Amino acid sequence: MSPTFQSEALQYARGRAKRFLDDLKAFVAVPSVSTDPAYREEIDRAARWIADRMRELEIDGVEVCPTGGHPVVYGEVLSAGPGVPTVLVYGHYDVQPAEPLELWTSGAYEPAVRGDYLYGRGATDMKGQVMAVLHAVEAVARTGPLPVNIKFLIEGEEEIGSPSLRSFVESNKERLRCDVALNTDTGMIAPDRPTIVYALRGLACFEIRLYGPGNDLHSGIYGGVVHNPAQVLCELIAGMHDGDGHVTLPGFYEAVRPLTAEERSELARLPMDESFYREKTGAPLLWGEAGFTPVERTGARPTLEVNGILSGYTGPGAKTVLPALAMAKISTRLVPDQDPGEVREQLMRYLEAKAPPTVRWEIVDLGGGPASLSRRDSGAAAALGRAMEQVWGKPPLFKREGGSVPAVSILQDLLGIDSLNTGFSLPDDNMHGPDERLHLPTWYRGIEMLIHFFFNLGEQGGTLFKNKG
Amino acid sequence: MSPTFQSEALQYARGRAKRFLDDLKAFVAVPSVSTDPAYREEIDRAARWIADRMRELEIDGVEVCPTGGHPVVYGEVLSAGPGVPTVLVYGHYDVQPAEPLELWTSGAYEPAVRGDYLYGRGATDMKGQVMAVLHAVEAVARTGPLPVNIKFLIEGEEEIGSPSLRSFVESNKERLRCDVALNTDTGMIAPDRPTIVYALRGLACFEIRLYGPGNDLHSGIYGGVVHNPAQVLCELIAGMHDGDGHVTLPGFYEAVRPLTAEERSELARLPMDESFYREKTGAPLLWGEAGFTPVERTGARPTLEVNGILSGYTGPGAKTVLPALAMAKISTRLVPDQDPGEVREQLMRYLEAKAPPTVRWEIVDLGGGPASLSRRDSGAAAALGRAMEQVWGKPPLFKREGGSVPAVSILQDLLGIDSLNTGFSLPDDNMHGPDERLHLPTWYRGIEMLIHFFFNLGEQGGTLFKNKG
Repeated sequence: MSPTFQSEALQYARGRAKRFLDDLKAFVAVPSVSTDPAYREEIDRAARWIADRMRELEIDGVEVCPTGGHPVVYGEVLSAGPGVPTVLVYGHYDVQPAEPLELWTSGAYEPAVRGDYLYGRGATDMKGQVMAVLHAVEAVARTGPLPVNIKFLIEGEEEIGSPSLRSFVESNKERLRCDVALNTDTGMIAPDRPTIVYALRGLACFEIRLYGPGNDLHSGIYGGVVHNPAQVLCELIAGMHDGDGHVTLPGFYEAVRPLTAEERSELARLPMDESFYREKTGAPLLWGEAGFTPVERTGARPTLEVNGILSGYTGPGAKTVLPALAMAKISTRLVPDQDPGEVREQLMRYLEAKAPPTVRWEIVDLGGGPASLSRRDSGAAAALGRAMEQVWGKPPLFKREGGSVPAVSILQDLLGIDSLNTGFSLPDDNMHGPDERLHLPTWYRGIEMLIHFFFNLGEQGGTLFKNKG
Repeated sequence: MSPTFQSEALQYARGRAKRFLDDLKAFVAVPSVSTDPAYREEIDRAARWIADRMRELEIDGVEVCPTGGHPVVYGEVLSAGPGVPTVLVYGHYDVQPAEPLELWTSGAYEPAVRGDYLYGRGATDMKGQVMAVLHAVEAVARTGPLPVNIKFLIEGEEEIGSPSLRSFVESNKERLRCDVALNTDTGMIAPDRPTIVYALRGLACFEIRLYGPGNDLHSGIYGGVVHNPAQVLCELIAGMHDGDGHVTLPGFYEAVRPLTAEERSELARLPMDESFYREKTGAPLLWGEAGFTPVERTGARPTLEVNGILSGYTGPGAKTVLPALAMAKISTRLVPDQDPGEVREQLMRYLEAKAPPTVRWEIVDLGGGPASLSRRDSGAAAALGRAMEQVWGKPPLFKREGGSVPAVSILQDLLGIDSLNTGFSLPDDNMHGPDERLHLPTWYRGIEMLIHFFFNLGEQGGTLFKNKG
């Protein structure tokens, strides 16, 4: 592939900075919250929006495919022919809820630029990342022949654990056949530190519900004889960690693949120490599992978090009530080779052993998926690493990531392909929180990096993996 | 006082059952929630409503008196003259919040009669009880001379711990001078069991706020290094009781006056065993402080309750967030001689000792007051007990009550008078909860009982107590 095409593509992208940003703002303005049924129409609107953008780029076979849940958007450009690799671009158009809305400086779905940042729910996770790939493909396709074949799989359920993706991939194995997946749903550790994530944690989410008395009771008349379900829930949650920060669900660590000494010494080289995490989070002091460094604890060790808890009266002032119900949302982040179904069993066994007979309880599954590990020494990883050096002037950091992208393990399992996990989000982008933002200079560099990547990959020719799906 | 007047008053009341109920419904329809500033106008409306009703009854000097918080309604009828006792009728026109609204069968402020019950917030606590006294006074006053002098003190802050009452009573000692207070804010243990409450628990309410990271965080990226404030709050709350149900705040039981053997054996005669409480509450099994019976635990021992807890995401589905904040509302019920200010110090000491340095915390005072004990052998108590026998054909039960009425200890302290604590609410009236209700046959009997009480008290002549305020 001629270096002329490559520099013309870069030129094309540089001349369209404003339009690229306007496109992204229009996408961010769609409140495509996947977890809340109230947003179902907005989910469909976001799926149609991205499909329309793909059709404008003359991507073939664009289809909004129904699933048991939210639709998957598919499309492909196979003009490069059989001599070069096929990349499956993975992304998601759904976002996390924006609540608490009062903590946003500007509206969550009214994208606004302040300084170097675009603010809005989904700006960085991951509408900005999806648009970076589409913009890079546009720049390459508008200025010459595509150097690789590209397929697109953009789903709408990543933020709820991708419950429909496995069966969609299973029913579309032939259509999705490819050499490697490109997943831009991870991030960089700093604006000058291009990063490839080779491991992602799995996820298993639950809601625990406790039922005490038949009604909310007067705490004076009945306080002292009825076990308060809010208190019982606190006792159960308090018992889920021991004094050393270990999770106490029975058997939780049994399947955990230990870190090798080599990997530990590699992870120790990442510039992410205690002060890095304190600065990024504003937490007064760090906390976590004894015997592991912060990088190991967030990337290579499983954790259990309370994502939400609610019981009784929480409005202004006092209400002296003994609540009838208490609820907590719990999520566990998993590492190889933990299984989300087994974690559910462990939680059941914990509650069976610990919940007192003074309350009734149930757990509700809220989705999840296993962890994944990708090869760091593949040709595709090399093509991506070189593209990073071309833009940032330094090789990528290889990192384990604490977040979860269920698609990565599903694609590995059903198509036999690895994912290149990368992206241009930064640790202080407030992902999932109020004032989510995208660092625009890094985003524009990311678009250029992806242009380089497509050319680098095309130059390698042939297909990259033997075990095609 | 002639028995003719007495039976004419009873006759008058019996002929006005429907109008009495309609009056009560109009009062219940005013959402006078004292804890929430959003209802401030409704509070004023309720105060004016009750003042207008008192003026219609030709009660003298009716005044809506401003305080630092919600107003007190005062009025008096001193026509009986110096030869007979003066009763101070205490009540409150404010109500608890009605949330969760979706659990009400009909609107909380749309009073509705179903079967023998009137449903609505405040129907039993205590708008029904305030109206019972006004209706009884009306029946007596409209059919003859009043046998006793009556003063009214109806406040609007009982449900938030009566924060302005002490200074109001202090500034109005002369105006409030009386022989005994009648407080109808307690209840009966069953429809055929008239009850006089001689002890009320005190109350101290707090909000605990924990602050962790600066923002809600992505639980994948930061789960494992940041101490989750929801988890810390659960640990702190779980530690507030030991395995035997004792409260662990340092020094919590030090000032508690022990129960005498005599009182324990009296309390043991109340028909309120395990099955009574299980049936009234729907709790699968009882719980509480080891070494005490259910009646002792609710009435004569101090307790600590979680009234509400909130952190993170609590909407539908999953949101994998590590929350920045966590909050709990805690109330303690106190017995003689515990002091609410000392309990605040004990909670501070507990948190100072137990809260980890990974979070910041604060506590907010939400009001309270000390416990009270009244004499069971006074002439006024005898007049009330005889009235109960006249209506129900059996003597009253004397009982300690788990709820709190700060006014009782304030009046005892500043005016030197005891309160006769009684009322016509029942244990399954869903006080403070959804579907609060009032048992109408018991309420009508209560109005008749109060008519008898005023005549019985007037017959005793003179004043009842030496230690007038």
